Amino acid sequence: MNKKIFEFEMKVRDYECDAQGIVNNANYLHYFEVTRHEFMTSLGSSFKESHALGVDPVVSRADLHYKTPLIGNDLFVSSLTVERKGIKIIFYQTINRKNDGALCCKATIEIAVIVNGILSRGDYYDNLMTEYL
Amino acid sequence: MNKKIFEFEMKVRDYECDAQGIVNNANYLHYFEVTRHEFMTSLGSSFKESHALGVDPVVSRADLHYKTPLIGNDLFVSSLTVERKGIKIIFYQTINRKNDGALCCKATIEIAVIVNGILSRGDYYDNLMTEYL
Amino acid sequence: MNKKIFEFEMKVRDYECDAQGIVNNANYLHYFEVTRHEFMTSLGSSFKESHALGVDPVVSRADLHYKTPLIGNDLFVSSLTVERKGIKIIFYQTINRKNDGALCCKATIEIAVIVNGILSRGDYYDNLMTEYL
Amino acid sequence: MNKKIFEFEMKVRDYECDAQGIVNNANYLHYFEVTRHEFMTSLGSSFKESHALGVDPVVSRADLHYKTPLIGNDLFVSSLTVERKGIKIIFYQTINRKNDGALCCKATIEIAVIVNGILSRGDYYDNLMTEYL
Repeated sequence: MNKKIFEFEMKVRDYECDAQGIVNNANYLHYFEVTRHEFMTSLGSSFKESHALGVDPVVSRADLHYKTPLIGNDLFVSSLTVERKGIKIIFYQTINRKNDGALCCKATIEIAVIVNGILSRGDYYDNLMTEYL
Repeated sequence: MNKKIFEFEMKVRDYECDAQGIVNNANYLHYFEVTRHEFMTSLGSSFKESHALGVDPVVSRADLHYKTPLIGNDLFVSSLTVERKGIKIIFYQTINRKNDGALCCKATIEIAVIVNGILSRGDYYDNLMTEYL
Repeated sequence: MNKKIFEFEMKVRDYECDAQGIVNNANYLHYFEVTRHEFMTSLGSSFKESHALGVDPVVSRADLHYKTPLIGNDLFVSSLTVERKGIKIIFYQTINRKNDGALCCKATIEIAVIVNGILSRGDYYDNLMTEYL
Repeated sequence: MNKKIFEFEMKVRDYECDAQGIVNNANYLHYFEVTRHEFMTSLGSSFKESHALGVDPVVSRADLHYKTPLIGNDLFVSSLTVERKGIKIIFYQTINRKNDGALCCKATIEIAVIVNGILSRGDYYDNLMTEYL
């Protein structure tokens, strides 16, 4: 579960909160996805570019633990680490509130790679994340 | 704008409400889009099918008047009528709360038709909506 | 997990699909939430009503397994069963494509109950789901 | 409409694109809302703070003209100017793609102010935007 290799800061948008006044549970999956895609961008690729090459990452499992809820306007830091596990790529992701570091959500996200419509090992990502996998 | 030619009933989903406890303004554009796509489906086509044929409807203008706000669990009726105006297809759409008929939102939505990436008159839609255009 | 106690049918809305042409992973959490809230409604309560009483269900964990992806216009059946586990209420939820029954997503969703801002056992739900818990 | 008084830069998130590969029309209302709320924050208030005081801005009309579509990963600049018109506050908002300045969407958004549940002139905003109204 080691040290974080990528961090991305975001701010809660008011429309992401529901009638309870807290960020709706589904939006954390959006935050985590944005963070993974920004990570890809930081490595010189992008979701769009890999898609154009016929390489599509698809979430095969997401296990989320919700802790302190985020509310409107909260700044938060979304960070990740990654490892390969057989055919899957596993991201360990956390979201912490910025002002006090409180853990808001932590997740294990498994990615399967579809290459031209077929489940594949996705060497594209090994090349991209060679430093980390 | 004259009599409605299509009606579709929906129910507010709680996550569509924001911290004010009312449906967030952006979601009405979702409701209107769903209604247009269901209208296409009722005519024997679909958004997906036209997209596969290279025919993509794109919103070029949306003018929305918000009246009574919808809240969680509200049932509502979304209805539309349509006309052609030069190269554009114009939908007149309304959303009324079901229990008392209160007008919640009315909109004029202009659709431009992109055929294989090029702005076009979109005869595909004339054929589809021949009864109404 | 044993037999389903509630089923709710929905249809994919085109805006719920992302650039990959499949339903974005976060929307399954929306579908599951809608189903739980419809289940509450079927029992004579509602998310809105319990919120007004100061009783708020909050997702504390969500473990989702994604199988066959849903695409635009797909009809699907969302079903659930429920059990109490200490202070938590656990929902076992599945989404199956309607035309062929293919499993699209299955999830274990843990709900913590907040009563007037304090984590609580949430007897409100025991009373509501007395037949099932 | 005259010179911009506030600018806010954002980046398209991939999940905001629909199956057409472009940002779904409804998301522009989200972008515009985020920008108005960030504007409030820049003035020393916030949507959350005004809500806590019983002052709620509500969109009463939104007239959007869609031009060049944004796609995944695009950076864009969202800017606004504001004026009072009787009981309403009118925002003139534009979204331009960052790399070439292309106009993506421009909108006129009318805000009605609800104070403790009653439609009101909303002097709260006059005080806040005293420099601009």
